[in-house]
Amino acid sequence: MKAQELIVSKWLNTDQPLSIEKLKGKVIAIHAFQMLCPGCVLHGVPQAQKLFETFSADHVAVLGLHTVFEHHEAMQEKSLSAFLHEFRVKFPVGIDQPSVGLDIPQTMNLYQMRGTPTWILIDKKSELKLHSFGQMDDLLLGAEVARHALEGLESNVNIYKTKSKGN
Amino acid sequence: MKAQELIVSKWLNTDQPLSIEKLKGKVIAIHAFQMLCPGCVLHGVPQAQKLFETFSADHVAVLGLHTVFEHHEAMQEKSLSAFLHEFRVKFPVGIDQPSVGLDIPQTMNLYQMRGTPTWILIDKKSELKLHSFGQMDDLLLGAEVARHALEGLESNVNIYKTKSKGN
Amino acid sequence: MKAQELIVSKWLNTDQPLSIEKLKGKVIAIHAFQMLCPGCVLHGVPQAQKLFETFSADHVAVLGLHTVFEHHEAMQEKSLSAFLHEFRVKFPVGIDQPSVGLDIPQTMNLYQMRGTPTWILIDKKSELKLHSFGQMDDLLLGAEVARHALEGLESNVNIYKTKSKGN
Amino acid sequence: MKAQELIVSKWLNTDQPLSIEKLKGKVIAIHAFQMLCPGCVLHGVPQAQKLFETFSADHVAVLGLHTVFEHHEAMQEKSLSAFLHEFRVKFPVGIDQPSVGLDIPQTMNLYQMRGTPTWILIDKKSELKLHSFGQMDDLLLGAEVARHALEGLESNVNIYKTKSKGN
Repeated sequence: MKAQELIVSKWLNTDQPLSIEKLKGKVIAIHAFQMLCPGCVLHGVPQAQKLFETFSADHVAVLGLHTVFEHHEAMQEKSLSAFLHEFRVKFPVGIDQPSVGLDIPQTMNLYQMRGTPTWILIDKKSELKLHSFGQMDDLLLGAEVARHALEGLESNVNIYKTKSKGN
Repeated sequence: MKAQELIVSKWLNTDQPLSIEKLKGKVIAIHAFQMLCPGCVLHGVPQAQKLFETFSADHVAVLGLHTVFEHHEAMQEKSLSAFLHEFRVKFPVGIDQPSVGLDIPQTMNLYQMRGTPTWILIDKKSELKLHSFGQMDDLLLGAEVARHALEGLESNVNIYKTKSKGN
Repeated sequence: MKAQELIVSKWLNTDQPLSIEKLKGKVIAIHAFQMLCPGCVLHGVPQAQKLFETFSADHVAVLGLHTVFEHHEAMQEKSLSAFLHEFRVKFPVGIDQPSVGLDIPQTMNLYQMRGTPTWILIDKKSELKLHSFGQMDDLLLGAEVARHALEGLESNVNIYKTKSKGN
Repeated sequence: MKAQELIVSKWLNTDQPLSIEKLKGKVIAIHAFQMLCPGCVLHGVPQAQKLFETFSADHVAVLGLHTVFEHHEAMQEKSLSAFLHEFRVKFPVGIDQPSVGLDIPQTMNLYQMRGTPTWILIDKKSELKLHSFGQMDDLLLGAEVARHALEGLESNVNIYKTKSKGN
């Protein structure tokens, strides 16, 4: 299934807006979160940061998507920016465009996400490959990202940020 | 040294305003924190909640003090309220009164706190007994709270919320 | 209730045999464990080591009691010694005297312990004050040890290893 | 580089002896450990167990190798067996054959391992692909195992124990 485009009102931690279209050719790992969701703050966001530090940006794009569906006034852009700064989040984060007359923002609605944290994996051809609500284990997340990153490549291509890792 | 009175603009998680004066006769354990300080969110606030659940409210008052000294716009009352709700914080939290023309709020300034998290312990006679910046170990925090809670009491008085604990 | 004397076949990590009788005047915190019990290795033994490092030996004696009630051949003295060395356990550990014709060793039997880990606290007058099977929270353990350590003392006596802690 | 054959005196947790030769066609993930090495007990062995539970045995063989190079008397087969039972280790574990006149056992010596924990990854053609001393991150370990498991397969082959994971 082709992944639907992200609907983002503003991007943080990046010079220019991102999109699934623009990132075609790379694996896209999207961590949908809320800055006041304990499961995101304690597990998902640090995991996304580690993913960002492990895999080469040439092969894998790690994105955050701030999908606010409750306490909207508490999680405005100013608060999110401070959160990203204080928790040292370095990957790009898009603010999911609020819906009119609906608590759930537009991308969250489009993808029919059940809550946060949610992991979305999209392959190099923009196909939606994984949609997982709740905590995801590091071993499995690393395996799935590597699987899609290596598609169409020789198996000895270095998909990591550093050369020393792996073989 | 007599503990200086808290200067609080608003209290959350409590029906009525609290003060050191009103709590005379109990040990007061104050956790000064910011809702976007990682050391507070990951360690200090859960520790304060556990302290609140362990000791009897007849003997020990556990208070949070939201001492915002940076990213002021990001940590307004609406955001703090949502944080307390989502992270299931049940103890009373006072918002440290902002200073005019100074980033550091008034109680933080009065106590000359160096940052967050900070633990303050005040004994039953309103004497300041401990002022500790940074993470504090559970074993030592439990020991210090018990030490002051038992002052002037028979050593077999139950200072815990439940009867089954300890002796 | 007066605490019954420990029945120990050999003491490790100490120059001379210890006993409840000899330690009268101090609080005795006994961690009954097996070196191959996961709850002991992952939680109880590190907790006992931290207790040993926190409280002054003038006031609190932290003891391990190796109560082997299963896999006896797997947990002989040679294995225990290597375990204590590798896991950097510094407090004295007594080997609970095996029973004849019974899996449960003698002190474990005498105290009717239900398994490992078990915490036993004995006050300065050799009274048994706490007998707790399973994991015990650091806050509560620190509180209980402090409570008994301060019995009969001025509340400002330093019961910790370092002077800087607490007041 | 072709992986050298394991020299094992006895296999536990398996009905029949294993070897690199026999496992040709599968990825082999070997966790070299000692049962009294804290880094192994607290991190490596649980990680190996999780690896064993995540990947399909049709594609990935997870093996333990008990490489005792110190405290030999403390870590004999009886103690190892009890350890595996108590810590619920379910994957096959080989006892590295002791050397004559040398503390380091034979496979450890052959592979020139620097200590424990050590991870060894061998691909389906019995080529040594990774040799890593010290703790290894879950994300990277999962990625490396997946990379070799998928070699020569269509990228949509299910390499996990359960069908529901991933795509």
